[in-house]
Amino acid sequence: MKVKEIMDKDFIDVSPDLGLEEVSIKMENFRKFTTPVVDSDKRLVGWITSLDVTRGLRENKKTVADIMHPKDAIVHVNENDPARLAVLETSHHKLVSIPVLTDDDVVVGVLRSFDIVETLSQLYDIKVTKIFEAMEEELKGVTWDELMEAAAIITRRRTGKRIKPQEYEQNIKEATFGEAIWATGGLEKFFVGLIAIGELVIARKVARARK
Amino acid sequence: MKVKEIMDKDFIDVSPDLGLEEVSIKMENFRKFTTPVVDSDKRLVGWITSLDVTRGLRENKKTVADIMHPKDAIVHVNENDPARLAVLETSHHKLVSIPVLTDDDVVVGVLRSFDIVETLSQLYDIKVTKIFEAMEEELKGVTWDELMEAAAIITRRRTGKRIKPQEYEQNIKEATFGEAIWATGGLEKFFVGLIAIGELVIARKVARARK
Repeated sequence: MKVKEIMDKDFIDVSPDLGLEEVSIKMENFRKFTTPVVDSDKRLVGWITSLDVTRGLRENKKTVADIMHPKDAIVHVNENDPARLAVLETSHHKLVSIPVLTDDDVVVGVLRSFDIVETLSQLYDIKVTKIFEAMEEELKGVTWDELMEAAAIITRRRTGKRIKPQEYEQNIKEATFGEAIWATGGLEKFFVGLIAIGELVIARKVARARK
Repeated sequence: MKVKEIMDKDFIDVSPDLGLEEVSIKMENFRKFTTPVVDSDKRLVGWITSLDVTRGLRENKKTVADIMHPKDAIVHVNENDPARLAVLETSHHKLVSIPVLTDDDVVVGVLRSFDIVETLSQLYDIKVTKIFEAMEEELKGVTWDELMEAAAIITRRRTGKRIKPQEYEQNIKEATFGEAIWATGGLEKFFVGLIAIGELVIARKVARARK
């Protein structure tokens, strides 16, 4: 995934000679805590936050140029950078947002931390049943019912809880991957449970074939 | 995981009668775009953002009480709420941060979107090799070398790329879960690959036992 796939294209920008009152009103109306400062070709020249604006208003500064952080002093990413690295930059520097540039330094978007949260959450929101469907397809010759039966047996072995295959099926239809890894106590444990189910299902298939 | 495990405890708060100039300086110095407004018992009474402050400064408002959003009008969470739900609230409302309360409405933290990004990223930063170690432990009687050999074979079958078991081992030592799911094209595909490796390793074990 690239930065351009998760960035916010619905951003505002300001020019260096804009007055502080106007900037303040623009940022308030669009509810933006940060905004890129661009030249007439929309190339990045700086960055301001609403905290720069409050300080500027208090200190009677006049224009954006008086309060902005120059381009060299801020974190920015290229639209074709891997999203993963941009996400790490954002969390590492504890930034609310960072500007996204083309190869020619034109601002084409802003990467915002709550958009990232949304993207990452969506990955976690994959239903567990999808993973089982992929598993069924992979384990050729194994039916869905055999898979659910094995899952119920493994659950009982691990938790002592008696659960029917139908109940298990209902659970994974509702549960997301995110809930599952938090419920099983971590990614490795969730995965180990899946492997155990796969192993049991194969063992039962082999046993049946021998009869 | 609960909200209190991922919230920022290093937050600032302000009282309703604080002057706007002082609030502005406090938020700038601590680099906070938002802050809870609390009474003398540290109970939440409202919430302000730096955009409320810029508007207040422009319009010559005097105190926090003149600009704040009352408690009833804002999103807040309890410290014992599941972190997952709070994360969804944050991304759903596109909020930079939300206050975290005790049962008595005392503010004990602030949940910030970049802290959430950090938490979610850490989950993705688990090394793939950890997952294989968990797999080896689960598949009793399977050695690490057998696992790496099966992984190299599956990789070749799926990608056509010849890779030695040692190279595969090196790759998973460096790769994270996040990289792996983005490289394999999604969570389901990543899991399916692992299941295929588990299946092959068992098939080879069974074949050897029969000889």
